[in-house]
Parts: sequence; structure tokens; C-alpha cells
Amino acid sequence: MRPDLSGIDPLELNLATRFSVGDMLTRSTQLFGGRTAIVDGEEEVTYARLDAAAEAFGRGLLDAGVQHQEPVAFLLGNSWRFAASFFGCAKAGLVALPVNLMLAPEDVAWILADSGTRIVVADPVFLPLLEAVLPALPAITQVVVTGDDVPAQVAGRDTVRWDDVATDPTPVRVLVDDRDTLHCLYTSGTTARPKGVLTSHLAVHVGVLSNALQVGHRRGDEHSVLPIVLPLFHTTALDTLLLPVLLTGGTAVLPRGFEPEGFLEVVERRRATHLMLLPMMYAALLASPGIGTRDLSSVRLCIYAMAPMPQERITAIAAAFPSAQVLLGSGQTECVPATVFQWPSHQETKAASWGPSTVTVDTQVMDPGGNLLPPGETGEIVYRGPHVMSGYWNNPAANTAAFAHGWFHSGDVGHLDDEGVVWFTDRVKDMVKTGGENVSSVEVERVLLASPEIVEAAVIGVPDDRWGEAVTGVVVPADPGTDPAALAERLLAHCRAHLAGFQVPKRIEVRTGLPKTATGKIQKHELRDEFRG
Amino acid sequence: MRPDLSGIDPLELNLATRFSVGDMLTRSTQLFGGRTAIVDGEEEVTYARLDAAAEAFGRGLLDAGVQHQEPVAFLLGNSWRFAASFFGCAKAGLVALPVNLMLAPEDVAWILADSGTRIVVADPVFLPLLEAVLPALPAITQVVVTGDDVPAQVAGRDTVRWDDVATDPTPVRVLVDDRDTLHCLYTSGTTARPKGVLTSHLAVHVGVLSNALQVGHRRGDEHSVLPIVLPLFHTTALDTLLLPVLLTGGTAVLPRGFEPEGFLEVVERRRATHLMLLPMMYAALLASPGIGTRDLSSVRLCIYAMAPMPQERITAIAAAFPSAQVLLGSGQTECVPATVFQWPSHQETKAASWGPSTVTVDTQVMDPGGNLLPPGETGEIVYRGPHVMSGYWNNPAANTAAFAHGWFHSGDVGHLDDEGVVWFTDRVKDMVKTGGENVSSVEVERVLLASPEIVEAAVIGVPDDRWGEAVTGVVVPADPGTDPAALAERLLAHCRAHLAGFQVPKRIEVRTGLPKTATGKIQKHELRDEFRG
Repeated sequence: MRPDLSGIDPLELNLATRFSVGDMLTRSTQLFGGRTAIVDGEEEVTYARLDAAAEAFGRGLLDAGVQHQEPVAFLLGNSWRFAASFFGCAKAGLVALPVNLMLAPEDVAWILADSGTRIVVADPVFLPLLEAVLPALPAITQVVVTGDDVPAQVAGRDTVRWDDVATDPTPVRVLVDDRDTLHCLYTSGTTARPKGVLTSHLAVHVGVLSNALQVGHRRGDEHSVLPIVLPLFHTTALDTLLLPVLLTGGTAVLPRGFEPEGFLEVVERRRATHLMLLPMMYAALLASPGIGTRDLSSVRLCIYAMAPMPQERITAIAAAFPSAQVLLGSGQTECVPATVFQWPSHQETKAASWGPSTVTVDTQVMDPGGNLLPPGETGEIVYRGPHVMSGYWNNPAANTAAFAHGWFHSGDVGHLDDEGVVWFTDRVKDMVKTGGENVSSVEVERVLLASPEIVEAAVIGVPDDRWGEAVTGVVVPADPGTDPAALAERLLAHCRAHLAGFQVPKRIEVRTGLPKTATGKIQKHELRDEFRG
Repeated sequence: MRPDLSGIDPLELNLATRFSVGDMLTRSTQLFGGRTAIVDGEEEVTYARLDAAAEAFGRGLLDAGVQHQEPVAFLLGNSWRFAASFFGCAKAGLVALPVNLMLAPEDVAWILADSGTRIVVADPVFLPLLEAVLPALPAITQVVVTGDDVPAQVAGRDTVRWDDVATDPTPVRVLVDDRDTLHCLYTSGTTARPKGVLTSHLAVHVGVLSNALQVGHRRGDEHSVLPIVLPLFHTTALDTLLLPVLLTGGTAVLPRGFEPEGFLEVVERRRATHLMLLPMMYAALLASPGIGTRDLSSVRLCIYAMAPMPQERITAIAAAFPSAQVLLGSGQTECVPATVFQWPSHQETKAASWGPSTVTVDTQVMDPGGNLLPPGETGEIVYRGPHVMSGYWNNPAANTAAFAHGWFHSGDVGHLDDEGVVWFTDRVKDMVKTGGENVSSVEVERVLLASPEIVEAAVIGVPDDRWGEAVTGVVVPADPGTDPAALAERLLAHCRAHLAGFQVPKRIEVRTGLPKTATGKIQKHELRDEFRG
């Protein structure tokens, strides 16, 4: 049974019934127009202003000739203009492509080339980066720059001020399909090159509804206040922090960076209701003098991510935020987080678990042959549900592998217990998670191996209180007589010259050989076991 | 930017990423398999049993030759097999078509003919109805009957037992598109013929998520318990009561009918957390002896629907359910409710309003020319959002009218205030046009009902040479022995004291009862037909 809709203009039908993330902001503005949507440093931006700016920016991009479903790359730090740019793209049917600002210039250049980007939106602070990469990117013809004092050109391309793009706030009227791509977020490239993850309006909107339900956002008489210090170019901050709070008419606070004392001051002054921080950030808060003197009673939920925390730290957080539950949430770029999320009771009984599936996610464990495994058996964690990505950009082979056997393959290894709680064991690949960033061990190894002084390299993550995991390199010198300490120093300097700061190993060990399989593959798990010990 | 998915089997991709209501039950079963999903009378049906039955029933229908997106008509009362039949259709990509069981046989026959139904699922109690209508419905070749003692034929068609259809619980694997039709619910046809409202998986799933967020369903350590006495063939009970509670792993209790003392016993024994009842049902509870003796502290939210309630009744409900908020929720079949929903503070400040839009709905007011009106101005209430219906079945003209100007037209008249709160005036077709003025029948009814001498009131326009339409009141007295003429005189005097002259009824008729729909809505069209004659 399908209705006969032949008498209706397709655009009008789309406007009346679609599932678009751009409309999310329209609706919150409808009810909460005068309320503060975003606190950017000390600037308070209302829903009405944010929505008008987003409509105007989207309209301006279309007027500038950006085509339906074309990528718009962001080199933008956390700010209200990031949100306005994002919603402008959503409203206009364009693909927001926020670039990871911690990447090395060659990775940024690779992403801009791979995505076919023609237009970049940048904060002034990233213009030197653009100067460096644009010469090799002839396709990029338009550069939009936030701020007032903008050079006329960057690397020979004309620039335009963000405010001069966003001039006409008349609502954009374009057809946006539920499964149109909303954003493209590149993975940090576990094995080789970063992959562009395409996610639809439908996936993100479902993920955001599911997240709001999970974390207990209220809407109406009460609303949430959520300080965001994680970068908005990541799915965590964008899809599980910013969007759910704006869906429900709350206030997102964007402090300038993370500094414990200042952060606690923001929590107290803004009456924050939810926090989401990395374990090392909670550790820093607990070590801060303000933790004992500030009124932190407004906080209802302290979410942590990336890695389980020691029980003492969880207990200390619960004591410091007397009205709050402390829960772990997990997810990944390919499956709009949070995919699995602890319940309060899990902190007492299963604190080291990841918790069970969120409401629109089906989680299972699969063997390499595509068979689902019973509780207790270890295999690859796989997901089903509407918030799974649409697919990788420009990479059919990766898509075929990711969706094998009718499930999305997470690349994580673990098991379910008999209550459906996910227990994570290890990564299928050997990504190192350090300080909230994903580091490709292969990428660091590639840089190390570019040095003529070594012949073999393996990079692993070693458990570390401060970083979660410390990037650790293990190398074999070309000349066995080389002084190990001096070699390590030279290699570290080499890494600093070719890698982003977070990718540089915290430590380099020199060995005479590496453990290998019969076929010559380096056995990283053996190295990990050794370094853990 | 779109991904290249050419290497992937379309069914497997669909299974991994779709937004299907059938999967909702799979996911709850995954985590809460041993928990009671439905209490049917005194029978407790677990999630595992309900899900297996649904898979088996869906598979059985496909095996019987029912085609993708074909309607499956239900003549089913509230029972766990209703839910299993519904989810079975959802899982199998079929269209559930629950028929309103209070309709006259000719309306049932009309619906079955209009929808092109070939298969009917019926409780034994409805076999006489089928005997009556089947002779004129040659297309219907299959009749599935719940219960054990089933006749071999009904009106010459072979029957099959429900349990003999639902034999193989192996999960169904068919492609279900987000916008495939999930259910077809016919309107109650207050004007002419009922219209088949087609609603998609996407619309219902979004509506259910939105509703769960709105009413505060919890999931995990705590869960909701919701007694459902409204009929499941209606969108209210199906989409806003049953599905949200099953989405979140709660328990739906299906008492046999509504009897105040028995209902309160169920609330106490099952520790109900949410109630949704009609105003007259709350009145019956308040008049019941059990209201003062039962432990009703488990109830967190008392929702009422259909019509505002007098403030004294709201206060009395709040007193009887000491832990509960009392809120009005509104919606309609064409826009999966609740579309608008009060916040707690509205009960103090705007109890007679409908409240503002729910989280995925955009509500506006439009003039007949298609212009959106500013706050305070009265016009037709229009909606936008993903939970708007796909369209009416077999009725392109009704679709064109319903979606005119890019909004869904509700047929309700009202205005928004400056906080976005919806104030309902009347149904478009119930407005009385008298002497060049528009009179809201609802407003006159509210004044009439303020008199303690009457328990029910309906106001209609009756064709009149002088006035165009004469405002006419039809009332039911509290004391059946009251002298009708004297009562009418007292009510007219009361109206003159509280209404503008043009709003005062020209005539008041006293009756022993009013014609009503299955859900308790007064059928004004029947009164109009009668008074026209």
C-alpha cells in the first residue's frame, strides 16, 4: 500500500515530512528562540541568532554555487560559527566535512584531495596550514574565513569573510532526503590512509534522539547545560554532545580549551547538568583545588569515554559531583555514538564493561566466518541499526568488508555477557588511543621507518595513567653498534618533524629483534604483553 | 558525496542500516528477553516469547503468499496476539491494518474493500461480523483465527488457526525500506467515508522515540509499566502507549476492559508508572472507593487526551496519584502522536492549552491562502516533521488537500501564543458560522460543562434561515429526573452570563446520552444529521 501523491509538489512534500538535521535547529528555535543555545567563550548566542546565521550561511553557500551533496570542508575550532556552518550545510543539503585539526599537513591535504573538496571554511588561525596545503590542491577555489581581518587571498585563492557569506537569513527551501549525507568525518587511519565516513541525516537524527533519551536530557521547564571541551570535528562532541543538547533546547558551553580550574568555574557558574570528558581530564579535575570548593551540585551525569577508569577515580568523581551518576559511553565514527552505554547499576557490578546497546542499536559478536557467537565467546563486535554510517567515501572495498554478512564490523574485539553487556578486549587492528585521539600505529611506523638508521619498527599502545595509552615505538637499528639512547632521541626529533604532537611516541625502545609469526608478521600482542608487565 | 556500495548484497545492507519497527522488538528482546513484555489479562508474555511469535507469524504470512506491502486486516481486541500480529507484519514488510471494532458492519466492509484486503486475522468473537461482511468481499480468501476452537470455514472461506500460521520462529529476512508502510489506520470518518492513513516505519519509529523522551520512559535498571485500556486499533494506544513502552523494555498491561475498581487494583499490583486515560475515565476512577485506599505511588505521569479537563478534576487526580504529574497530550492518526504535549508548568499556567510541539514536530498556524500566521492569530493548525503520515490510501485529492503549501493540514483551528504553546479552538468542521461570526463549539461546551447540573455537552451548528447556522446545545443531565425545559432555561441563563450574545445557544436539547466513537469522542456529525432532518 502506497499513497498516490501525484498532485503534490515534491519539494513541499519533502518539507512537510522529511527527517533532516537542519530542521532540528528550526524546531528548537521555534520554542526557545530567546534562550542561549551556545556560550562561546563569554559570548552568548541565542537559538534565534544561531538559526538565522545557519540559514544565511547555507543560503550563501548555495548562492556561491556549491552543489547539492557537495562537501564543505571545515578548518574550524570549537565556536558558535562551527555550529552555524554545520547547520547551514545541513539545511542546504550540503555535506559538512570537519577536518581533524590535529593532523599533520600531509594528512589534511590528502583528505581535501580525496573528498574532492572545492570550498573550505577556516578560522584565521588555520590560514598558514591552508597556505601550506593549497598549492597541491587546485580544485579548491573558494576559501571562507571567519573573523574580520581577513587577507584578500590565501595561496592565490580569493577569500570571503564568513559574515559576508551569511547575509540573508530567509529560510533555505531545498529538498533533503532522509538518507542524504549529512557529514563526512575522516577516520584517523588505523591501517593506511584515513577513510571518509559518510553519515546520513537519518542516522544522525536517530542517534541524537537515542542519545537524548539515554542521557536523560529534559526539554521544557528544565533543560540541559553541557560544557564541551572535546573537539567538534569528532563525532563524539558533534553528534553526542552538541546535537542532543540543541535538539532538546539546552545550552552548549564552549570553553576556550581545557584547564581544570577554569572548567570547574564554568561548571559552577553555568550550572552544568552533564559532563563528558576523557579519563585523564577527570583526573586533572580531581587534582584541582576547585574540586573541593565549587558548588558542583547541578551536574546530573558524568560521562567518560575512550577507556574504563580505575574504580578509585570513579568513586572520587561521584564524591566530587554529589548529584551525578558516572557512566561510560562508547561508540565510533562509523556508528553515530553512543552505540553502547552503561546503566547506573553497571558502575557497581560491571564497571569495566562497556554496557549494553543503546535503544536503536543491535550489538552482536561475530566469528570470522560470519557466524554470530553466543554470550561469553569472543569475536568481532558488530552492529546493526539506523545509526550505522551510509558507507566510506571512494572506497568500495572497505564498504564490502565493513558490511560483510549484513552487519557493520566495528574492528573491535570483545564478547557479550548473558545480560547483553559488551566487554571489550582489544582492537582488531592496532590503533592506539591516546589522550582522546586515535593514532594509527602504521602511520607512526611509516615515519620511523623513513629513517635510514632503523630496519624494523612496531608501534603499540602501552597503558598509561595520563594518556590512556602511551604511543610506544619498538625499533631495530640498522647498525647494532648504535648507542640506543642517542638513537631514540634522534628518532623522536624525526617524529616531531613529521607527525602531529599526539602521534609522536612517548618512548622509543631499541631492540635487536621483534617477535614475529612464521610468516614474518610482527606480533604486537606479544610486545604489548611485555610492556604491560 | 555518496558511498559506492556496489559490492554489497542489498538485503544485507538493509538489515545492517534500516529503520524498521520490527527491529525494535528484536532489540528489546536482546536485552530483556526474560522480562514480561505484555500482561494479557493474567497471562504474562515475555519479550522472548512475543518476539519469537512475531517472527513466526510474519514468516507464516509470507509462506501463505502474502505479498510485500500487502495489507493484513486485524479484527483483534487488545491481546498479546495483537502485538505479535503487528510486529509480525512489521518484520515481514507487510502492512498492518487494524480495523476499528466499534464500527458498523457496513463501514468494516467498506474498509476491507477499499484497502484491497485479501487476508484477515480475527478473534473468534468477530467471526459473526465476518460472516456478515464476507459475502460481499470476494477478494478475501484467507481468514486466520486466534483461539483453539476454530470453525473450518467462515462464509465459505477456509480458516487457519493463528498458532498454525506462527510455527517457525526463525527470524524473517526481508528488505524493509524506512519509508515502507507500517500500518494503515482508517480515520473514524466523522464526515464521509473513512480514509486509510498510511504511516511508514520511519514515521512511527521517530514518533515512538520522541514519545519515550517526552513521557520520560526509562530503560535499563528501571522500566515503565503501562496499563492500556484504550483500543490498540487506534494510533493513541498503539503508537504512543504500546510501542514506546516496548521500545524501552517496559511492560504493557492489557486489562480486560475498563472498570474503575479493577483498574486501580491493576495499577497497585503491577506498580504502574504511566497512565493514559480519557477524561471520563479519570472521573470514574475518582468516583471509585479504591482511589482512597490503594497504594498508587508508583504512578509518575497521568496523561489525558481528547479534551481539557476541569481544574478541579486535575487537582483531584494529582492528589490521588501523589507522585504523578498530570499532563494533556494531543495528536491525530495522520501525525503519529503525540504531536503537542504540555510541560508540567503548563498545568499551573496554561491548563486549557494543548502545550507546545514535541521534539521532532514543527507546529504553525496557517490562513486559507497558505500564509503562516503570527502568534495570537487564529487559523488552521499545520504540522511538519518526520512523523507526518505518508498519505491517504487511494485518495489523491485528499492528499493534495492535506499537504497544501508544504505543511500537513490537521483540520484543527487554533492559535499559538508567544511561547509556541498551541491553543485549540475547534475542529474546522465543528466551528459554527452564525450571523457572520465564527463560534467555537468547544468554547460553548466548556461554559455549559461548568454547570454541575450536566455531565456531557455537545454544541453544533444547525442550518437556520436567519442565522445561517444556529448554535445548538445538546446536553446530558447529571440527574436523569431533572425537568428538561427548566434545565434548558437555567443553562441558557448561565450561558448569557458567561458568553458573548452571538455565542449563546439558540436552543438547548436535553438527552439521556450522546452518540460516541469507539474512543469516546462525541460524534457531532450524527447529531448534525439528526437536527438537519
